[in-house]
Amino acid sequence: MASMIFTDCSSSTPSRLLPFTRSPLLRRQADVVLVRRLLTPLNFSCSRRRLTLRSSPSQSPHVSASLATETSATAKVIDGKAVAKQIRDEISAEVMRMKDAIGEVPGLAVIIVGNRKDSATYVRNKRKACESVGINSFEVPLPEDSTEEEVIKFIKAFNDDPSVHGILVQLPLPNHMNEENILNAVNIEKDVDGFHPLNIGHLAMRGREPMFVPCTPKGCIELLHRYGVSIKGKRAVVIGRSNIVGTPASQLLQREDATVTVVHSRTPNPEEITRQADIIIAAVGKPNMVRGSWIKPGAVIIDVGINPVEDAKSPRGYRLVGDVCYDEAKNVASAITPVPGGVGPMTIAMLLSNTLIAAKKVYNFQ
Amino acid sequence: MASMIFTDCSSSTPSRLLPFTRSPLLRRQADVVLVRRLLTPLNFSCSRRRLTLRSSPSQSPHVSASLATETSATAKVIDGKAVAKQIRDEISAEVMRMKDAIGEVPGLAVIIVGNRKDSATYVRNKRKACESVGINSFEVPLPEDSTEEEVIKFIKAFNDDPSVHGILVQLPLPNHMNEENILNAVNIEKDVDGFHPLNIGHLAMRGREPMFVPCTPKGCIELLHRYGVSIKGKRAVVIGRSNIVGTPASQLLQREDATVTVVHSRTPNPEEITRQADIIIAAVGKPNMVRGSWIKPGAVIIDVGINPVEDAKSPRGYRLVGDVCYDEAKNVASAITPVPGGVGPMTIAMLLSNTLIAAKKVYNFQ
Repeated sequence: MASMIFTDCSSSTPSRLLPFTRSPLLRRQADVVLVRRLLTPLNFSCSRRRLTLRSSPSQSPHVSASLATETSATAKVIDGKAVAKQIRDEISAEVMRMKDAIGEVPGLAVIIVGNRKDSATYVRNKRKACESVGINSFEVPLPEDSTEEEVIKFIKAFNDDPSVHGILVQLPLPNHMNEENILNAVNIEKDVDGFHPLNIGHLAMRGREPMFVPCTPKGCIELLHRYGVSIKGKRAVVIGRSNIVGTPASQLLQREDATVTVVHSRTPNPEEITRQADIIIAAVGKPNMVRGSWIKPGAVIIDVGINPVEDAKSPRGYRLVGDVCYDEAKNVASAITPVPGGVGPMTIAMLLSNTLIAAKKVYNFQ
Repeated sequence: MASMIFTDCSSSTPSRLLPFTRSPLLRRQADVVLVRRLLTPLNFSCSRRRLTLRSSPSQSPHVSASLATETSATAKVIDGKAVAKQIRDEISAEVMRMKDAIGEVPGLAVIIVGNRKDSATYVRNKRKACESVGINSFEVPLPEDSTEEEVIKFIKAFNDDPSVHGILVQLPLPNHMNEENILNAVNIEKDVDGFHPLNIGHLAMRGREPMFVPCTPKGCIELLHRYGVSIKGKRAVVIGRSNIVGTPASQLLQREDATVTVVHSRTPNPEEITRQADIIIAAVGKPNMVRGSWIKPGAVIIDVGINPVEDAKSPRGYRLVGDVCYDEAKNVASAITPVPGGVGPMTIAMLLSNTLIAAKKVYNFQ
């Protein structure tokens, strides 16, 4: 795997995003230095040479030693797939308990407009996940040329439908629609996506509680909790300031008493800031942007990015990588989410969790 | 003045809050080093000795040199009083233009519950400020033992009153009232304080615009703008995470593309973070907490704190100081707001500005 490190991280992003900085922090880590020395200079031929070295039957003891050291420094893998399964099992048990007690189950309505393949996949996965835990799912597929009013009409019908406890409008919407108008039409008590500005406002304010926390950042924090990562008093850096991940993630970390810095596209030298972080949440959508040298030894890394990069060796012609250069980061961090199988599976698990919370509120079921 | 530095900053806060750190940043500044050397060790007797030195007719050339250097390093004073006057003049002209064009003027309603002396002073100042720019002001003073319902009844009446464009409930409210219920009753289109969670949500979200920005943080940013302080791409640290200043200030800075860190009571070693900031907004309510050694040379300091500290020499028995040790900070920062006369006067100016904005929206007056 180590031989893939720099091919992965160097080939898929512009060099502007990937300065190779010799981090003094890294240099202090003797075990990492050894690996880095072997891999310098960082270019494709270097990676290829490394490949040759590894496949050679007469490996030098030096290389073997470096590989052994590298293994010992490898971060714990934060297994989002396993945690998501555990959460789905918990939700499933709760749904069954609710059904037995009051004869009701939660219901989730999903509205999808147009034919985007990725959106269709997400919606199918949501339906399957609902089925697997006993939540009723309702789907409204609308044609690409639907009007804003038609979408809002369906939202309003679901707002009034007592068997629907959560409403989700699959994003992105077609360009001719005003996302703000459509999302604002969702009754805040059914806003299981947590994107309503009133939810975001409550999330930002001390002493207020949002009805729902947006699913992906909620999943990030849940992973930290389930892996026993302490947040209080820690330095946290969130990379990216989107409404759906970066901003709510920073608010959640601050609510748990982390000292949070939000790094974004206008931040000069982001690596100087990330290097101070005990916890990094990367949610920027740039493949392999966060290099090993950006990371403080022992930091915990939550990688929200799911970026397709060309890969001739894959049958699909591409593979998915995160915003963090995993193979470099795993040698520096103490724990890290893989891509895929990290944050990804958590998002739908949190959507189910929010839908269960919504139904419990309606039925006043504890 | 320099002789007062450490008496001021050491005497008014517990030493726990005021570690004297020998900042490497400061030591790099030769001119500051000279002053600091003269003032070491830092205790009251040192300050008194300094006083004697300054009052001595036979000052050594060394001391004169230090004073000269000190003066040359002094930060620009950000004169909030003057800026607030300028803004009031601008608002006054706009109110007159509105009256001439459509025969209407903005109206601000203030509800005050109980007899807190400080609240009464603020409300009186607001009334005077309204009068000075031609905004109608309405005041409802309610007894301390009013019920939540009574307060909300008045809010609703003002919500329905077309001559009232802004409604302000003076905080803090008596303990028996639920602040959240009361503030939520204010029509968001009249929420000139900007405290409604929907406003905070919009402020936190990219691509959304709040109806109103909370007055004090709006005043902080206005001061930066009027003094030509560039925000984009700068490192900013906000000290304090209150709903009314810290949180919205951090959101405003980030909207202008600063990289923002929020430091709070659970942040270990806050000075390590503030020392990286190009812009510091201190809003924590701890007198003189931010020492000179906490500040990067050349940083711009906005001090929101207004803290009374005992002062036997003052006829009132106290004087007002900020969260920043002004006399130390002015030798390190490039610009700083004084206390009083910095952010304070801006808050009411921004309230008038928000009330004018509210009225302009209602009458669609550009």
